[in-house]
Formats: sequence, structure tokens, C-alpha cells
Amino acid sequence: MKKVYILLADGFEVIEALAPIDILKRAGVEVVRVAVGDSLDITSSHGHTTLHCDTNIAKADLSDGDVLILPGGNPGYINLRTNEDVLNIVRYYFGQNRFIAAICGAPTVLAYAGVAKGANITYHSSVLHEMEGYNRLKESVVKDGNILTSAGAGHSIAFGIEIARCLVDGDTLSRTQQGMEL
Amino acid sequence: MKKVYILLADGFEVIEALAPIDILKRAGVEVVRVAVGDSLDITSSHGHTTLHCDTNIAKADLSDGDVLILPGGNPGYINLRTNEDVLNIVRYYFGQNRFIAAICGAPTVLAYAGVAKGANITYHSSVLHEMEGYNRLKESVVKDGNILTSAGAGHSIAFGIEIARCLVDGDTLSRTQQGMEL
Repeated sequence: MKKVYILLADGFEVIEALAPIDILKRAGVEVVRVAVGDSLDITSSHGHTTLHCDTNIAKADLSDGDVLILPGGNPGYINLRTNEDVLNIVRYYFGQNRFIAAICGAPTVLAYAGVAKGANITYHSSVLHEMEGYNRLKESVVKDGNILTSAGAGHSIAFGIEIARCLVDGDTLSRTQQGMEL
Repeated sequence: MKKVYILLADGFEVIEALAPIDILKRAGVEVVRVAVGDSLDITSSHGHTTLHCDTNIAKADLSDGDVLILPGGNPGYINLRTNEDVLNIVRYYFGQNRFIAAICGAPTVLAYAGVAKGANITYHSSVLHEMEGYNRLKESVVKDGNILTSAGAGHSIAFGIEIARCLVDGDTLSRTQQGMEL
């Protein structure tokens, strides 16, 4: 079974996190929610939803995942990129040629980790000034090698589908899409 | 401030619920999560996410809302349509010409409540046999008078945007969409 880790910090964007979680679970992928912070309970941006995570980044070994997912949301993506454990696991996945999937403001975590410079990516317009050295494509989801990026919350479902496409066979992906009426 | 109630029963589809909640909060609409069941903690279909609701349908007065939202998810939509309080509030909103927004399997709640027969609607393919007397359009989101329907989880973001369009001015909607990179 394929396995993904999704990193959740206070202020994460709820659609950007839950659309990939839900789509990947529908596709039969194991999804582990990893809290970035002291508590396993992490609250979304706009303060409206608290998710209970499975483990905590300071304690867990995330080295066996196929994909590392970084949702955006403000200040969620800032709480990711200022955490040294997050930057280290991003560098590990990049070095191992594993998939890293980042959406909205979370592609800035790549910049803070100093990885994937020169890659074709996309991100939220508001972080443009922080993404020097990357090649921005104004698309919904961009895949360049093992780096998947997406522009923002409105593209969360497409983002989740593209992550699934990297992990499961065509029949499984089709069944997943059909179940969602896509 | 506009106000919506979203009815959540165990087995609700998490994207279908959280996309509208998030989009409407971004647009400045008050969103009240109403548990259908004894507990305020309601667990999604696929069992992966528990949401804490603001109130319970057996105790709350929902008569002052502008929209009543019915998410799908299996068995969430079945747990909605077999609850007499749900059917009564659906009939009240229909009788008052307030908006009712239903997605995926939840348009069957309209059928169980006996409202909006003959309307143009859409719904998940799997409930086709339960929707006799309605006019199905194979579209992402269908609006017919005060009835909004959507086909399934893959259309949750479009569904949330169309609910917002019924409630807020054009500038607010544009800002909301831009914030999501739509």
C-alpha cells in the first residue's frame, strides 16, 4: 500500500488538506496526518475546523512515505517553513527523489529548504516575491519530476487527483474520479 | 450578516461539507454546523475526520437561516433523510422560499421530504432510481429557483461558490474567488 504523510500546522487551509486526504483514502492510499506543533489537535485558518492528527513530527519517522504533502493556508505555511523538522524532511524527500506536493503558500517551504531551484512550479500569487529562482507556470497543478505544486484552495481537488495519479493505477484512479462524479 | 446552517450526520462527505463551510466563511457568511444525532462530534464517511458541531438539530432553532446545506456522503445522506427533524426543516425552508443546497446523495432528502418535485436538479448517479419526478441535468451545479444541487464530491468547490453567489455581492464573491486563485 502506498503511503503519504501530510504535515498540518495551525492555520492550515482546510480544503487544501482535506481534499487530498479524502481523495487519497478513496484511492486506497494510507494517509498519515502529522501535527507540526506540540498538540495533535491542529486548527485551520479561519479558525473553524480542528483536526486530530495521527502523530507528531518531533516524534515520528516519516522516512517511509511515497509523498510528503504540504498544504497552504495562512499562517499554516509559515508555521511549516519555520520548523526545522519540516525543512529536514523536505530535504530528505527531495534527496531521495520522493514526491513532494505543495499548494498555495506552501511551495515557499521548498524555497526555505533550499530544494528544487529552477523547477517549474506554481503557487499562490501572494508569495511571488518569495519564489525567486523557480519558474512559475500559471496553471492549476504543475508536475515537474517529483515536485507537484498547485496555486491555491480553489484547485485542491485537482491537486488531490494529481497526487493520486502518481501513486495508483489507471483503473483505481478512474474509479476514484467516478465516485466523485469527475 | 447572511447565515447558513449545514446539517452534518455521521458518514457525511468531508469535502462536500468543508468546501462550502470554508468558502462561505471566506465570503463573510455565518456558518452554523448542526449535528444530526445525539453527539456534537460527527464523523465523516471513510471514517477519517471528526468535526465538532456548534449545535444539535433536536435542540436548535434553524428558522432564521438564508440557506440550508445538505452534504452527501454515504451513509451521511441516509442519516439525514431518515431524521424527521431534518425533513421538517427542509419542508420549512422550501415553504418559506429559502435556499436549500444539496449535493451528491443529499438531493434524495428533497424527495423524502416531498418538496421541489419537477425541479431541474442534479445528483450522484448512484441515487438515480430514487429521484423519480425530478428533472436531472448532468451538470456540475444546477440552480432552479431556490434549489441548488450538485453532482458529487468532485464538484464541492463549485457548489460552495454557487451558494456564496446567492448570498454576497459581486465584489465579495470576486475577492473570495481570487483568494482561492479561481
